[in-house]
Amino acid sequence: MSEAVKNLVNNDLADVMFNRHSVRQFDPNVKIGRDELQKMIAEAATAPSACNLQSWHFVVVDTPEAKAKFKQAVMKFNYPQVDSASAIVFIAGDTQSHYVYRDVWNKVYEDGNITKERLDQILGTFLPLYENATPDFLKFDATIDCSVVGMQLLLVARAHGYDANAFSGIDFEKMIPTLGLDPKRYVPVMGIAIGKAAQEPLHTTRYDAKTQTDFLA
Amino acid sequence: MSEAVKNLVNNDLADVMFNRHSVRQFDPNVKIGRDELQKMIAEAATAPSACNLQSWHFVVVDTPEAKAKFKQAVMKFNYPQVDSASAIVFIAGDTQSHYVYRDVWNKVYEDGNITKERLDQILGTFLPLYENATPDFLKFDATIDCSVVGMQLLLVARAHGYDANAFSGIDFEKMIPTLGLDPKRYVPVMGIAIGKAAQEPLHTTRYDAKTQTDFLA
Repeated sequence: MSEAVKNLVNNDLADVMFNRHSVRQFDPNVKIGRDELQKMIAEAATAPSACNLQSWHFVVVDTPEAKAKFKQAVMKFNYPQVDSASAIVFIAGDTQSHYVYRDVWNKVYEDGNITKERLDQILGTFLPLYENATPDFLKFDATIDCSVVGMQLLLVARAHGYDANAFSGIDFEKMIPTLGLDPKRYVPVMGIAIGKAAQEPLHTTRYDAKTQTDFLA
Repeated sequence: MSEAVKNLVNNDLADVMFNRHSVRQFDPNVKIGRDELQKMIAEAATAPSACNLQSWHFVVVDTPEAKAKFKQAVMKFNYPQVDSASAIVFIAGDTQSHYVYRDVWNKVYEDGNITKERLDQILGTFLPLYENATPDFLKFDATIDCSVVGMQLLLVARAHGYDANAFSGIDFEKMIPTLGLDPKRYVPVMGIAIGKAAQEPLHTTRYDAKTQTDFLA
């Protein structure tokens, strides 16, 4: 059994994904150790990211003091998850992740994983895009990275035997300073509350996906 | 075995998630039927969305004619995936999804799944936010929804025995009109190329997640 599987309590993809629901009321007595939280973040961070820049940053909120501070930048509607969760992982977008773009891809080349021609193509195509990008594009790019890693964290939490809830009902101005991060570098994206469900969550339905799908002629 | 599991070729979460890599070269001879594509989209759409508004729209590109049209709005760097994939699912954000907000949540109440008090709280908290939202916020909100459903589609593709690649290297002005969608309503987010890998993809490494994690004091 691979190292990764040993960490998982539930390796059943269909159950983890299709029986996932947003839990907003957790058992407040359940603690999750920081080692396990860090492991879950690392597992979630196997998600893809634009140019493998991993434009995400995680702030864990898992003490009463941290929760009190954190709630200053959270909408009241989301207090139940924050109060009862074992931990919240807030995911912020890093709009300066491309500063190390050259190092990241030079290393891939030095490790012999891509050709010089491919390295030049990658550096020639995307690095100029990032170096000349508008703040809006860098926020958009980082928002995508943070959302895909957030989706994996929701699934990884279930695979570790917990439930979770993603929320963006926050104060977008206050959040980054509240977390002690640099507002010039980081943008707020979403919080993921993690813990053991204390009650059966609301099972929402979905539109028929066919009504949201076109086939390009 | 649940209905969902029957569709899956690979229900091993750890393998699907941790052994996933971005494939850019597919076997061009492999076809994926539209029924199976539609099923994969429906399975991916079990993803969460802000207020369950499902602010995503899917356009499938799976014929030579559609690919030729689609490539007019794709960066050359991503032509290999487009040319060789069995299909591309382009995910666009729906910035008008909240127009049906009241209907969505009234139905949840009429189905007896939430109390009147909860309905009033939901409608009172978020509907005004959406009705007064800036275009930027609606784009941000839809981008998150499209990214989480995109992440699930990457995993669902592997669970169906395929591989996939997410890309946003596109022409952001041209894409929506090229897909025949209303640019006043939809915003481009990402394409997901799906097929059978024709060669072993590049295995990228990740930063140590501990270096990207803080614990709020």
